[in-house]
Amino acid sequence: MRKISAIISLFALLGTMPALAQEPENPEYPSPNAIVDAAPASDWVKIAPSDLLVMDLAPDAAGNLRRVVIQLMPEPFSQAWIRNIRKLAAAHWWDGTSINRVQDNYVVQWGDAGYDNPESGETEQKPLPKGLETVPGSDYQTNKFTPSIKKHVLDLRDAAYPDAFDNYSSGTGFGAGWPYATDQTSVWPIHCYGAVGVGRNYSPDTGSGAELYTVIGHAPRHLDRNIAVVGRIIEGIEHLSSLPRGKGQLGFYEDARKRVPITSIRLGNALAEEASLAFEYLDTEGEAFAKYADARANRRDPFFIVPAGGADICNIPVPVRRVKGE
Amino acid sequence: MRKISAIISLFALLGTMPALAQEPENPEYPSPNAIVDAAPASDWVKIAPSDLLVMDLAPDAAGNLRRVVIQLMPEPFSQAWIRNIRKLAAAHWWDGTSINRVQDNYVVQWGDAGYDNPESGETEQKPLPKGLETVPGSDYQTNKFTPSIKKHVLDLRDAAYPDAFDNYSSGTGFGAGWPYATDQTSVWPIHCYGAVGVGRNYSPDTGSGAELYTVIGHAPRHLDRNIAVVGRIIEGIEHLSSLPRGKGQLGFYEDARKRVPITSIRLGNALAEEASLAFEYLDTEGEAFAKYADARANRRDPFFIVPAGGADICNIPVPVRRVKGE
Repeated sequence: MRKISAIISLFALLGTMPALAQEPENPEYPSPNAIVDAAPASDWVKIAPSDLLVMDLAPDAAGNLRRVVIQLMPEPFSQAWIRNIRKLAAAHWWDGTSINRVQDNYVVQWGDAGYDNPESGETEQKPLPKGLETVPGSDYQTNKFTPSIKKHVLDLRDAAYPDAFDNYSSGTGFGAGWPYATDQTSVWPIHCYGAVGVGRNYSPDTGSGAELYTVIGHAPRHLDRNIAVVGRIIEGIEHLSSLPRGKGQLGFYEDARKRVPITSIRLGNALAEEASLAFEYLDTEGEAFAKYADARANRRDPFFIVPAGGADICNIPVPVRRVKGE
Repeated sequence: MRKISAIISLFALLGTMPALAQEPENPEYPSPNAIVDAAPASDWVKIAPSDLLVMDLAPDAAGNLRRVVIQLMPEPFSQAWIRNIRKLAAAHWWDGTSINRVQDNYVVQWGDAGYDNPESGETEQKPLPKGLETVPGSDYQTNKFTPSIKKHVLDLRDAAYPDAFDNYSSGTGFGAGWPYATDQTSVWPIHCYGAVGVGRNYSPDTGSGAELYTVIGHAPRHLDRNIAVVGRIIEGIEHLSSLPRGKGQLGFYEDARKRVPITSIRLGNALAEEASLAFEYLDTEGEAFAKYADARANRRDPFFIVPAGGADICNIPVPVRRVKGE
């Protein structure tokens, strides 16, 4: 019987996010993970707990807790919806709602599934808190350029980033920790894997923020500028992406018992464990990130034989890490 | 209490694969799904059962059958590995092996997990059938251009396809039902969602075809030309993509009991139900596909307000349908 080292056999497919002690490194061309691991503390930026939206699902069949942590987008993007989301969380509006839709290679969606009233024969929705804003579709993009956006997204052609080519815009880049696209007149956030957006009806101003979704497949970039992106999942996406796919149209659960109950959604600073919610992202304007992005586009670590010479912006996920809280 | 039509509320996120009776259509700009539904029978190409690899997993906890159907790639791509795969299936080699790795936004991998022999202290692998070929890494791409590849991939710049821009090649296109990329000298298959590839160790010629994986996240195009793509999943990917993520390094299951047993893997023509395995793909050289690709790149159906003007090739999945067998 042939014997093969189990270690080598198991690591047959590299090119992944977590750094591996067993992964051989070429000192001249470190892997993207090794570059991130070696980034100095000064290259990491703290995420304020008030910019986190923490979703707790009912425990799974084995009794395991399921927590999903979302980072909300910074200004000047999608802030009116984010104000609504802060109000919805403060009102505990999502508590008792559910995950209602899981569509393979597309999205997981949550919010109020509605209640079919047998007396009236109509579906009733949970009333929304007072004071939510109605946000126009024009807010899906902005022409307010922060200095960071101007330098790293709008003026990208001068920067010779490997990800400058894009089928969905005239260029993409990173500003203050997030991926954006531009048409040179305006700028907008991108639907990459894990992006969180605001579900809506046909009219562009119908999304309040109460109905949210996240991307669990290939980046559906055709949604950019057509729906509001309000954040990204930075921990626990596996509790959503591994849910059974819905068998109804668009992946909705036909059987209401398949819906996953949401115990609560709170802002990070509204939780008793606020101090332990300590996350940082790698500064997208720092030297380590530039090296990381280049290594993602040109894999020269030992497994690879042909570096691609470029990368789709959604294949350069901004590294986020959990650190020891106070 | 506010009342909202449940139908409208549920269909808050369109842009999906299955056509919907409820989806309003703009007759001038039909949705991609409507175009596919309206394609004439002559635009659909039958897939031979001998080009299908059918994987049956052990039933799930509720006793549901789990079948995954893979279409193998046509010539001139990856044929040496595919010959090995045909031999492995004929030898029933995979029966009793398992799904061993599920890494979020990356891959699901299956094959022989190895057996830790407590007497020798070594990990033993299941012996491979005799007569498998050792395939060089140079076979990850080819310079044998079929007329279809020449016209639709190599000469793409003249064709003004919306997906001509690519960060990973000098151009992409579709040839005889599959997406490819080129550097003008050679051509290779693309790692889109659902692509099936051959796991290997560090040396490029170490993948036999016994260890396979599929993509369950954003297209990891940096693997193109670095690993062999041998097929794509055309039915049942949800049985893989919704599995619990592995908690070990690279998403391997640390607890061997989490591995999902593979009951059998067979070629479609080796199964008693061969006649019912009737699948067709939309001819990528036909008029319906051209309209579909254009609509994927320029969404003008009622939900959309800004058509993107282009599309990543992995956002133009080739439509495949199951038809009534003989």
